[in-house]
Amino acid sequence: MRQRFKPWAKEKLNEYPEVVAPNPADLKGKWHDYFGNDHPIHIEVGTGKGSFVTGMGKAHPDINYIGMEIYDSIIVSGLEKIVTEEIDNVKLIRENAQKLTDFFKPGEVDRVYLNFSDPWPKNKHEKRRLTYESFLSIFETILKDEGEIHFKTDNQGLFEYSLHSFSKYGMILKQVWLDLHKSDYEGNIMTEYEEKFSSKGFRIYRTEAQFRSKK
Amino acid sequence: MRQRFKPWAKEKLNEYPEVVAPNPADLKGKWHDYFGNDHPIHIEVGTGKGSFVTGMGKAHPDINYIGMEIYDSIIVSGLEKIVTEEIDNVKLIRENAQKLTDFFKPGEVDRVYLNFSDPWPKNKHEKRRLTYESFLSIFETILKDEGEIHFKTDNQGLFEYSLHSFSKYGMILKQVWLDLHKSDYEGNIMTEYEEKFSSKGFRIYRTEAQFRSKK
Repeated sequence: MRQRFKPWAKEKLNEYPEVVAPNPADLKGKWHDYFGNDHPIHIEVGTGKGSFVTGMGKAHPDINYIGMEIYDSIIVSGLEKIVTEEIDNVKLIRENAQKLTDFFKPGEVDRVYLNFSDPWPKNKHEKRRLTYESFLSIFETILKDEGEIHFKTDNQGLFEYSLHSFSKYGMILKQVWLDLHKSDYEGNIMTEYEEKFSSKGFRIYRTEAQFRSKK
Repeated sequence: MRQRFKPWAKEKLNEYPEVVAPNPADLKGKWHDYFGNDHPIHIEVGTGKGSFVTGMGKAHPDINYIGMEIYDSIIVSGLEKIVTEEIDNVKLIRENAQKLTDFFKPGEVDRVYLNFSDPWPKNKHEKRRLTYESFLSIFETILKDEGEIHFKTDNQGLFEYSLHSFSKYGMILKQVWLDLHKSDYEGNIMTEYEEKFSSKGFRIYRTEAQFRSKK
């Protein structure tokens, strides 16, 4: 996501350690303490400005949400929403997906959301796509048994690739939507990208992919 | 496919036992003898008027094709194409998919094509869809190890369902096309339906789904 550089973002993020986990590795296995309850934990990887994760937080007060985003100048917008609207079930991590196994113990997470992830369209960049098998392995590790990835995108090529990658990994595509906004799916919370691209007439693709039980 | 009833079709089909297998169960394990060569055998289930299977036969002379269609008044159009154009690598079976294991021994078939299959949109008719698990099991039985189903349709609901069903069965979606006619896929042979619906602007969906090795 292109975003104006905000030199003050880092300082602002540091001011809210109860929202932006200062050292997420210290919270490994202790996220329920950080949230102050035992509700399920759902993570959005690449949370951008936080419209989705804060919208979900407000819609589902019995779920704990964590938005993960590497860019301070972007994630600070999510912080502002959380603080202004006093949303206490949404927290933030300023890191990328590779670190997830440092931050969460196996099975600590109940669901992973991937929304409008970078498509990395060139074949040589396949390994950078968040639906590449090495990332699926990371998600599988931190998710509970039979955990799910809920994925949506407007990018046709990334969606085609991801259906391939999920199935190759052995995941079950529990449900697929090839035109989400014209379907009967209820409760959709839009991301910033989604508002922009769906208003231009692009289709939004969505799937709920489930890991097979290891038991 | 709606089709005018042709009372002469049955007699016509009976006149060409070298093209329309009179008793396909008698050919179980002997299809290479019927074709007179050892080329791979590809089956199209629900072949309609035979545009696809005859087009493929002409484009790939080193493959043996079998078109399967239950309605005499429809499949007779396929026979006419085969006879008129003297296509010797395309044969026909007047039966439906349930009988496949009676007609082919395990591993005798190299590929299954499903084109514009009946979507059976009501949930209560799920078991009639050719991508329902009971049909996948039949296809897996007659296919060689790691055999493939090549499936295309304009029906969004059937395609969404089929991606679910293939993945639930453990199949790998080797490749997915969410808009076949705008892709760089080469060598597409259109069915009658495909010509009709793509000309109206409908998207054509396609996937190549592979069974996992049992070895």
